[in-house]
Amino acid sequence: MPSGSFDFAPLLTPSLPPPAAKWTGFPKYNFIGGNNDPGHVPVDELITAATAVLAREGSTLATYGLNSGPLGYRPLREFLADKLKRTAGIACSVEEILITSGSLQGLDLVNGLLLAPGDTVLIEQESYQGALTRLARLGINAVGIPLDDDGMRVDAVAAALDDLERRGIRAKYIYIIPTVQNPTGTIMGEARRRELLRLSQAHHVPIFEDDCYADLIWDGRRPPALYAMSDRGGVIHIGSFSKTIAPALRVGYVVAPWDILSRMLALKTDAGSGALEQMVLAEFCACHFNKHVPELTRALRAKLDTLMDALAEHFGTAAEFDEPKGGIFLWVKLPDAVDTPKLAQAALAAGVAINPGPDWSTSKTYGKSRLRLCFANPSTHVIREGVAVLAEVCRREFGVPQRSANVERANA
Amino acid sequence: MPSGSFDFAPLLTPSLPPPAAKWTGFPKYNFIGGNNDPGHVPVDELITAATAVLAREGSTLATYGLNSGPLGYRPLREFLADKLKRTAGIACSVEEILITSGSLQGLDLVNGLLLAPGDTVLIEQESYQGALTRLARLGINAVGIPLDDDGMRVDAVAAALDDLERRGIRAKYIYIIPTVQNPTGTIMGEARRRELLRLSQAHHVPIFEDDCYADLIWDGRRPPALYAMSDRGGVIHIGSFSKTIAPALRVGYVVAPWDILSRMLALKTDAGSGALEQMVLAEFCACHFNKHVPELTRALRAKLDTLMDALAEHFGTAAEFDEPKGGIFLWVKLPDAVDTPKLAQAALAAGVAINPGPDWSTSKTYGKSRLRLCFANPSTHVIREGVAVLAEVCRREFGVPQRSANVERANA
Repeated sequence: MPSGSFDFAPLLTPSLPPPAAKWTGFPKYNFIGGNNDPGHVPVDELITAATAVLAREGSTLATYGLNSGPLGYRPLREFLADKLKRTAGIACSVEEILITSGSLQGLDLVNGLLLAPGDTVLIEQESYQGALTRLARLGINAVGIPLDDDGMRVDAVAAALDDLERRGIRAKYIYIIPTVQNPTGTIMGEARRRELLRLSQAHHVPIFEDDCYADLIWDGRRPPALYAMSDRGGVIHIGSFSKTIAPALRVGYVVAPWDILSRMLALKTDAGSGALEQMVLAEFCACHFNKHVPELTRALRAKLDTLMDALAEHFGTAAEFDEPKGGIFLWVKLPDAVDTPKLAQAALAAGVAINPGPDWSTSKTYGKSRLRLCFANPSTHVIREGVAVLAEVCRREFGVPQRSANVERANA
Repeated sequence: MPSGSFDFAPLLTPSLPPPAAKWTGFPKYNFIGGNNDPGHVPVDELITAATAVLAREGSTLATYGLNSGPLGYRPLREFLADKLKRTAGIACSVEEILITSGSLQGLDLVNGLLLAPGDTVLIEQESYQGALTRLARLGINAVGIPLDDDGMRVDAVAAALDDLERRGIRAKYIYIIPTVQNPTGTIMGEARRRELLRLSQAHHVPIFEDDCYADLIWDGRRPPALYAMSDRGGVIHIGSFSKTIAPALRVGYVVAPWDILSRMLALKTDAGSGALEQMVLAEFCACHFNKHVPELTRALRAKLDTLMDALAEHFGTAAEFDEPKGGIFLWVKLPDAVDTPKLAQAALAAGVAINPGPDWSTSKTYGKSRLRLCFANPSTHVIREGVAVLAEVCRREFGVPQRSANVERANA
C-alpha cells in the first residue's frame, strides 16, 4: 500500500495552483456557485427520456461519439439549431455546433485556439470568475471594461481598443456575457449590441459571447444574440444546459463557423463529451424544454423576490442592488467599510457561503465591498435565515448594518 | 447570419494542430479506436439503473458535484475502492480516487501536474497513441523502452535511467500499461513489476500506471497493480469504464495519495465530470459489474479468435502476431515491404480502417510494417470480410500476401 513516502514535490511543474481542500459538504446557507433549484430538476421526465433513448439507441454507446461523430449527439445539435434560431435569432447548421463538457470546456477551447501568454483581451470589469481565473492562469492581460445598466460600456470599449491600437496591441477577443450578465444581471439592448459589433469589426477584434444564462429571463424577452446580429462573422458563441436543466449534467456548446470549429475540434482531445447526458438531454428537450424553462424561471423569480425582501429587512439601506433581468444571482453593494473577502470567511464560519466581489471583478478595489448572492439553490426559508445570519456577521465584523432588522422594524 | 468573412487566421495561437476533418460516418470495416461490442452494452440494466438512481437522487443534479464534492459521485468511488482491492490489490480510500471524464482527462491531469516543455519521460516503445500525441503536443522528450512478451524491458529501463542520470536529467515519470499492454496485449509478470518498482525508487522517478484494459483478461487472472505493490508510494494509477461498460460513457478515474490528488484536483477546473453517467454507472456496477465483465470478455475472446483465423486464412504467414492475453486489439507484423501508413490510406478507400503502427510507437521505423487491429466493434462476419478486403488491398499495393487465401488453401 502506498505510504506516500515518495516525494513528488521536486517533480511538480512550476506555478501550480494551490492544492484543493478536502470536501466537507455544502454550507448550511449556500449562496455560491451556479447551483439550481432541486425541486425543479425534472426528474420524472429525465427518467422517461433516459428509458426511451437507451431502449432505442443504447447499443450505440459501444462507439465513441455514438453514431454522431465528434461534434456531439446529432439530435441534441438539431434541438439546439432550432432553439437558437427561435430564441436567439441564430441561423446555424448542426455542423456549426460543437457539444462540450459544460460551457467551461467551451471557454478552454476558445482560449486554446486564440490565446498565448502575454496576449490581451477585453472583458466586462465584473465578470464570471471562471473566465477571470482562466485568463490569469494563462498569463493574459485582461482589460476590464466598466458596466452600466445596459451592460458593457461601448464608449469604454472604444477607448480601450484605441489605446491598445496606439500601443500596437491587437486584443484577441472581447469576452462578454450580454444576456443576463454575470454578476450584474443586465441585458444589453439591441442598439448597444450593434455598436459593439461595429467596434469589433472596425478593430478586427472578435467577440466571444457567453450566453449561459440567456434562457432564464423573467419576461422571456431577449434581443438577438451578437452572433445572430453580426453580418460579417467574427463572433464565437457559447451556451449551456447547466442553468436550464441541471448543473451536474456537464453539457454546453460552442457555435462557430466550421473553419473555426474544426480548429477547436482538433484541440478537443477527450474522445467526446459524455454521451448518456447528451442523449438524455436531447430526448428530454425535444418534448419538455419549452415548458420546463418558464416554470423554472418563475420559481427563480420568486426566490429572487424573497432574497431582495430579506436583504431589505436585514440590511436596510446598507445593501444596494439593481434588480436583475433574469438569472440566479444578485450583485450587492455593501457600505465601503465592508471587505467582502473577509466577510466571506467570517460568514462561512457561521454557515453562510457567499461570493466576494473581488473574485468577480478585474478591479479588486471596485469589488471589495461587493458580493454575489446566488438564490437558486436554497429554499425561501433558507434564504431568509441565511440573509439574517449574514447581516449579523456583517454587523459584528464591520458595524453595518447598524441595527438588527427587528429593532429597526420595532422603531419604524 | 455570420458569413465567416471575419478573418480569424492572424489571431490563432501558434502551432495549433491541423483542423479536424468533417465526420463522414464509420467505415464499413472498423478496426480502429477503443470501440466495443454493441451487443454487449448492457442496455436493459442501464435503464434499470438510470431509473432507480434518478428516482432516488435525481434532484441532487441541481448542485455541481451532486452531494459528493469534486472527487466525483461517492457511491462510484466506493465501488471502485472495493473493486480495486479485489482485482488489483489496491488498498485506497474514497479520498484517494478522483473520477475523471474518461481516463484521457486523467492523462491530462497527470501531465499538467508533472510536465513542462523539454521534460523527459520513459514510455513503452509501443504505446497508446493518445499518450504519445499528448507528449508530442507538450514538447516532451519521450524515451521509448523496447517491449518483450513480459512487457516493458526493465534492462532497457535501467539503461535509459542510467543514461539520463549521466546527462543530469531526471525523468518525470515512467508511463506504462502493464496489464494488457496497448498495443501488444502482454501482461507484465509480478517479478518484473517488482524490478521496475525497484528501479523507479532507486532513481526517484515515479511510475504512471495506466490500467485501462486490465479487466478484460481471458483467464481473469492478473498480478497486483504496481500501485498496490509499491511499499513507498511513487505510483499514480489510472483506469476507465470505457472498455468494460461503454466507451461513449466518458468515465475514468485516477488513484493517488491525497497530497498528489489535491494538486491534480486544483487543475480540474471543469466544475465536475458528468454526474448522470457516474450515477448510472455506480448503480449498474454495484449489481452487475462482476457478472457483466466475464460475459463481455468471453465475447471479445471469440472475436479475437475470428480475427486470428481470418488473418491466417487471408494473410497466411505474412501476418505475424502474438496472441494477446486480453483486451480488444491485436498487434500485427506484416512483411517489411509493407508501409502501414500507406496501407491504411489505401485500405480506408476500400472501407477498411486500421491503426498504422507508427502512430502507436516512438520508433517510426519499428512501427512502419506493423498495425493495430481492434476487433471488439465489428461483428465476426464483418471481421472476416474486412480482413479479406485488407489482404486484397495489401497485395495490390505491396505484393503481399502473395496469393489469395483460396488459392493457397486449394493448393495446401
